Amino acid sequence: MRIAELSDASGISVSTLKYYLREGLLHPGAARAVNQADYDDSHVRRVRLIRALLELGNLQLTDIKRVLAAVDDETLPIHEAFGIAQDAMVPRRDRESAEYARALADVYDFTSRHGLRVRPDAQARGMLADCLVAMRCGGLAVDVHAFDAQMPAILAAASEELSHVPDHDRVLQMEATVVGTIAYEVAVAAIRRLALEHASSERFGHSVG
Amino acid sequence: MRIAELSDASGISVSTLKYYLREGLLHPGAARAVNQADYDDSHVRRVRLIRALLELGNLQLTDIKRVLAAVDDETLPIHEAFGIAQDAMVPRRDRESAEYARALADVYDFTSRHGLRVRPDAQARGMLADCLVAMRCGGLAVDVHAFDAQMPAILAAASEELSHVPDHDRVLQMEATVVGTIAYEVAVAAIRRLALEHASSERFGHSVG
Repeated sequence: MRIAELSDASGISVSTLKYYLREGLLHPGAARAVNQADYDDSHVRRVRLIRALLELGNLQLTDIKRVLAAVDDETLPIHEAFGIAQDAMVPRRDRESAEYARALADVYDFTSRHGLRVRPDAQARGMLADCLVAMRCGGLAVDVHAFDAQMPAILAAASEELSHVPDHDRVLQMEATVVGTIAYEVAVAAIRRLALEHASSERFGHSVG
Repeated sequence: MRIAELSDASGISVSTLKYYLREGLLHPGAARAVNQADYDDSHVRRVRLIRALLELGNLQLTDIKRVLAAVDDETLPIHEAFGIAQDAMVPRRDRESAEYARALADVYDFTSRHGLRVRPDAQARGMLADCLVAMRCGGLAVDVHAFDAQMPAILAAASEELSHVPDHDRVLQMEATVVGTIAYEVAVAAIRRLALEHASSERFGHSVG
């Protein structure tokens, strides 16, 4: 298909598609004639992946490039590529406080308590530690033990989620795990917010139906 | 305390604090002498709230201002202010596709199926619909029914979360609900990612310990 058709199929404007091509986020189409290229389903899928990372994941362009590089590097075993993509999805920031060090130690306890096979330097550890710091500083008397009870359900959901990943085709597998990671987690967040509004209505509300 | 002490207490540089003051994110300190102001715990808490919205919530400045306006408007009943703050935490975007309309209808079914008291125009509905669209377009055969089984646990967690909100002091209540919404949801996301890495190791991995 031509770029105008790729635009229709993906719902993204031609000028944005050209920007993705220039930035190397989107692989070039097959040359067809002078100044014309042919795009296919792999381009439609890649545009959707970029949109998911950009809009649902709120990722910066440089981080999106790192995710896509891991998706595309066929020399990387899929579990390793998954780890790299996961790390790229965690915003980098300075973390040096004593509170942070304490929270991170709690995260290590948490993963070993639950027998999780997670890289020692996985960025998701820092992401969780940041939240613990914010909760403690915000006066919310919470520690990571609060999540112990939910862990069996979360592990079952993660395993069920990966069961939707196709058995073959490395790129399809990677795309599914990356879109899945982002889309499920934002979905869970949205559902939690709906539940919180309901709970707030029960605790504080009167006339909201 | 002086601005340098506020900087120490909050871990945020004086120049950033001055920027928050200029932008009206942070309320002025009490005048103390020419060119000197006195800051207190309410400023420390507010800086933490801003950081949570900025770093964990990934919010834009304009949205942070809307959240803070709802926190500070004492004429707003707390449940209403909570709704406004929640809405400000969902990124605005164009949503016009037929897929989106279908997904949004599924979200309405979901909330009424679970008897959730949620405003018809709550932005979290759109947030959830966006995820359903991304999953479907991404070839993940999922619908919102997949979350039905988790709903009782999510509702119980929401209610437990709000139980940490203090009984008095409207500003403290609002700050706790807002920090809580963001910090818990990012914590749940981080824990899901740890669980996914574990599941990926079981499905795809070999030597990661």
